[in-house]
Amino acid sequence: MGRLILDISLSLDGFVAGPNQSSEHPLGEGGEQLHEWAFATRAWRESHGLEGGEDNVDSALVADLLAGAGATVMGRRMFSGGDGPWSDDPNADAWWGDDPPFDVPVFVVTHHARETVDKGKTSYTFVTGGLEAALAQAAEAAGDKPVAIAGGASLVQQSLQAGLLDELEIHVAPFLLGGGVRLFEGAPPAALELVRVVDAPNVTHIKYRTGGK
Amino acid sequence: MGRLILDISLSLDGFVAGPNQSSEHPLGEGGEQLHEWAFATRAWRESHGLEGGEDNVDSALVADLLAGAGATVMGRRMFSGGDGPWSDDPNADAWWGDDPPFDVPVFVVTHHARETVDKGKTSYTFVTGGLEAALAQAAEAAGDKPVAIAGGASLVQQSLQAGLLDELEIHVAPFLLGGGVRLFEGAPPAALELVRVVDAPNVTHIKYRTGGK
Repeated sequence: MGRLILDISLSLDGFVAGPNQSSEHPLGEGGEQLHEWAFATRAWRESHGLEGGEDNVDSALVADLLAGAGATVMGRRMFSGGDGPWSDDPNADAWWGDDPPFDVPVFVVTHHARETVDKGKTSYTFVTGGLEAALAQAAEAAGDKPVAIAGGASLVQQSLQAGLLDELEIHVAPFLLGGGVRLFEGAPPAALELVRVVDAPNVTHIKYRTGGK
Repeated sequence: MGRLILDISLSLDGFVAGPNQSSEHPLGEGGEQLHEWAFATRAWRESHGLEGGEDNVDSALVADLLAGAGATVMGRRMFSGGDGPWSDDPNADAWWGDDPPFDVPVFVVTHHARETVDKGKTSYTFVTGGLEAALAQAAEAAGDKPVAIAGGASLVQQSLQAGLLDELEIHVAPFLLGGGVRLFEGAPPAALELVRVVDAPNVTHIKYRTGGK
């Protein structure tokens, strides 16, 4: 199987979403602060069909991340609108609109079989066999490129708990959230290899290589 | 009161000590890995009366940290030999020997009053009025210099929970410990200012300024 990579924003106290997730606060209270650095970049805005944004070190990093993966795996709630408990309709349409930012085959881990959905360069294939089955299909679609895990939090935690990742890039935002969803909840002890740090004004990007599978 | 600073090593998953602390594993299982980067430096070894060590970016950072504070506050168990449950004799001698690495007045938070102990440039004054009383005495002793919190973990957590710190420098070691003592346990939400990143081969040093007191 090809490389499996994850990049994810988290607070200094280790949360990928704040406490009390709801339709009002899909990322939990304070959770949207973790992503401000990305939302401000030209590369992120372009990938979401928006103009403007800053052309800085963060934007270059986002552009590299967007171009890096050959396929993406995500959870069903992320497909249909975030990671909270409010989007439980299994036939919900993709939250990401008609021009999604992925531009690669996306494999959605779900309990509910349905037909593949095509949205431009992005396709959504629904996999009912669990995370590892989705990863196997994604690896085939990705060819020589790595597979990215997009989220949500429970799928990310599952990949860490199972030691499936080859590379992990964290974006440490300068906030304490005081509670919420912990990235490393249940992850077993491991020695990582520090690959690279990108020092930006409002976020610290640190890439690690794991022992792998 | 002067500035209050903390520098501390932690694992990528946010632990300052591993699980199952004991006399065999005073820093918990795997906890000593968090400090390997520091133990390898010339500056750390010199301050502990040892020869050799690497003269690298980490060593320069350790030298700056050692020279930075005008007084230090620590918990009683750190004074007498680590942060575990095995050093409960309130009259225990300082674990740090006759030439301690602090070289400044040290204020020890304890329930047990005793006479000040002098060890060369380091003195240990025992404060029974709690953390904030110790900080007030330390600030007076420190003059224009900041006060450093040395540990242990519970005193560090208390300073974070009470929002007492002005600066926080973390040394992120490339390990997952999978359990243990969390640096930010119980710390309330906060926006921090990212001051500086020092990128070293085996550890990432990130300094933050807090909103302060």
